[in-house]
Amino acid sequence: MAKEIERKFRILNDSWRSEVQASQPMRQGYLCGNTRASVRVRVSGDRATLNIKSATLGVERSEFEYPVPLDDARVLLDELAGAIIEKSRHELRHGDHLWEIDEFAGLNQGLIVAEVELGDAKESFARPGWLGEEVSHDPRYYNTELARHPYTRW
Amino acid sequence: MAKEIERKFRILNDSWRSEVQASQPMRQGYLCGNTRASVRVRVSGDRATLNIKSATLGVERSEFEYPVPLDDARVLLDELAGAIIEKSRHELRHGDHLWEIDEFAGLNQGLIVAEVELGDAKESFARPGWLGEEVSHDPRYYNTELARHPYTRW
Repeated sequence: MAKEIERKFRILNDSWRSEVQASQPMRQGYLCGNTRASVRVRVSGDRATLNIKSATLGVERSEFEYPVPLDDARVLLDELAGAIIEKSRHELRHGDHLWEIDEFAGLNQGLIVAEVELGDAKESFARPGWLGEEVSHDPRYYNTELARHPYTRW
Repeated sequence: MAKEIERKFRILNDSWRSEVQASQPMRQGYLCGNTRASVRVRVSGDRATLNIKSATLGVERSEFEYPVPLDDARVLLDELAGAIIEKSRHELRHGDHLWEIDEFAGLNQGLIVAEVELGDAKESFARPGWLGEEVSHDPRYYNTELARHPYTRW
């Protein structure tokens, strides 16, 4: 188990693109979820994982992640998961921190969200110039919610 | 992935007890579930698994099972799962088939259910003398349902 402490932001403009160090496409869906936990299947390149997160709203959540066979993950996504989320995940370093920028496709096309992982909820970090409004506490930006209520329908 | 083809029965009397070859206590709970899938955590002795089953009602379901660290499983059960099911699983062979007899405890105390796993839904098997009514198609006997609506409250 890991404690995941993440803060999530909209972005102001496209200037982050020139700082990107790695990108990869992701396809993910939720097997189920409730007020306690959600269970996600993700295929990212040739790697597949099963991920369990506590459903606590905010910056700190318990997270468990296990690798699963790629063939299993494809069946889970195609046959058992709900709506599929497609996105490209871009990584870049800014100051001392790694940022993950999720650029959504499909029904969430147009949405771009930047996340920074922190050691504790109060840790400070250098704010990139392209960083917009914080949305850590807005449930609409949870991937579970984006699967049910995609951005193009907001 | 495996296709699980199981038939489930009540039992008529205690005569199965003399045929038991192995028994082990199990503690399990569901992280979440919906009309497509359910995700279960089970601790059985010093072994822990995460199990995903399709929610199809009846004898044939898709099943995925992965080992997880015992410490993770305990946290998942204690912090993220819903109601916990406790039972002893007894195994015995009768004719060509392995039977699993689940003797429930806690809020499902009094319920004993026998399951046989088959190669296909029409496979025949020798019926033990203690075998009662078939309940494969009765959703009340699903462990997901027994967690929500335990036997002592039927």
